[in-house]
Amino acid sequence: MRKVILDLAVTLDGFIEGPNGEVDWCILDDDMDFQGFLSGIDTILYGRVSYEMWGNFQPDASASEIEKAIWEAVHAKRKIVFSSQERQDSKATFSNSGIPEKIAEFKQQEGKDIWLYGGAKLITTFVQHGLIDIYRISVHPTVLGAGKPLFQDLKERLNLNLVQVNRFKSGVVQLIYEYKS
Amino acid sequence: MRKVILDLAVTLDGFIEGPNGEVDWCILDDDMDFQGFLSGIDTILYGRVSYEMWGNFQPDASASEIEKAIWEAVHAKRKIVFSSQERQDSKATFSNSGIPEKIAEFKQQEGKDIWLYGGAKLITTFVQHGLIDIYRISVHPTVLGAGKPLFQDLKERLNLNLVQVNRFKSGVVQLIYEYKS
Repeated sequence: MRKVILDLAVTLDGFIEGPNGEVDWCILDDDMDFQGFLSGIDTILYGRVSYEMWGNFQPDASASEIEKAIWEAVHAKRKIVFSSQERQDSKATFSNSGIPEKIAEFKQQEGKDIWLYGGAKLITTFVQHGLIDIYRISVHPTVLGAGKPLFQDLKERLNLNLVQVNRFKSGVVQLIYEYKS
Repeated sequence: MRKVILDLAVTLDGFIEGPNGEVDWCILDDDMDFQGFLSGIDTILYGRVSYEMWGNFQPDASASEIEKAIWEAVHAKRKIVFSSQERQDSKATFSNSGIPEKIAEFKQQEGKDIWLYGGAKLITTFVQHGLIDIYRISVHPTVLGAGKPLFQDLKERLNLNLVQVNRFKSGVVQLIYEYKS
């Protein structure tokens, strides 16, 4: 069955963004094989704000070839935006129905895995409903001191199974966990 | 020169304790070689509250042999308690002088490395003054959702150099960083 995968960067103190949305600490390393990850997914899930910020992002002409290739691969995926606002966009499907039901529906369909992109509010909903099958968390060697935490408003403890650890040359360590239901 | 080492357990969301001081998520694995770590240090630094809670802790008779051996090794170290209160204790030295000056003094002395035990307030002082040379952070496969964060009240970002990653069979991953001044 298709899996819902959360893949994101966090600081060593567990933030996904600084207090003003800073993500300049985030490292894109060529040994991370993010393209390998992207080849295993065919659908990306966004919250409205994240979609507006990143859903159609185009890197600068000065960006590295890897970065350009990654964004091209991202933009070739099917995009679903969870939003309470009615909207149309030729590049994404907007959904305002119940998230757990929608995910159950996706999982019944044939296809590759599904990447839960963010932001924080959508991730919280997914965590609370136990909808994330795989957590891929890239711990960066930076302590911000303040920001938007990855995990918030949890109603109960979440216990995970560690399945893999990847160390990258930049000092980023990727921790991969399975959800333990 | 002797190094000041912070060695502690954090949850995946960066807490060192739950909201009510819970540390029951904390795993003591026999492949962690905590005794190896202890053999490299000769001094332990505590805040007053941590010292009162853990400074003379004795494990239950039912505790594992490893746990008993670890506590015995801990109690054989020189203990320094930073406290604004005047106190006497035959098992520890109390210090109410300036922490950075005291650490500079220790570093000039011959000896093994120094373990900064905690708690949170003392750790914050050390982080803010750049007094920690090595961060050994054991990331546990548990998300608590709330608690006492390892890093708080930072005045500026802290950038670290990853030096080692140890994966333990329990699912704990130890990340070892050097301070980048």
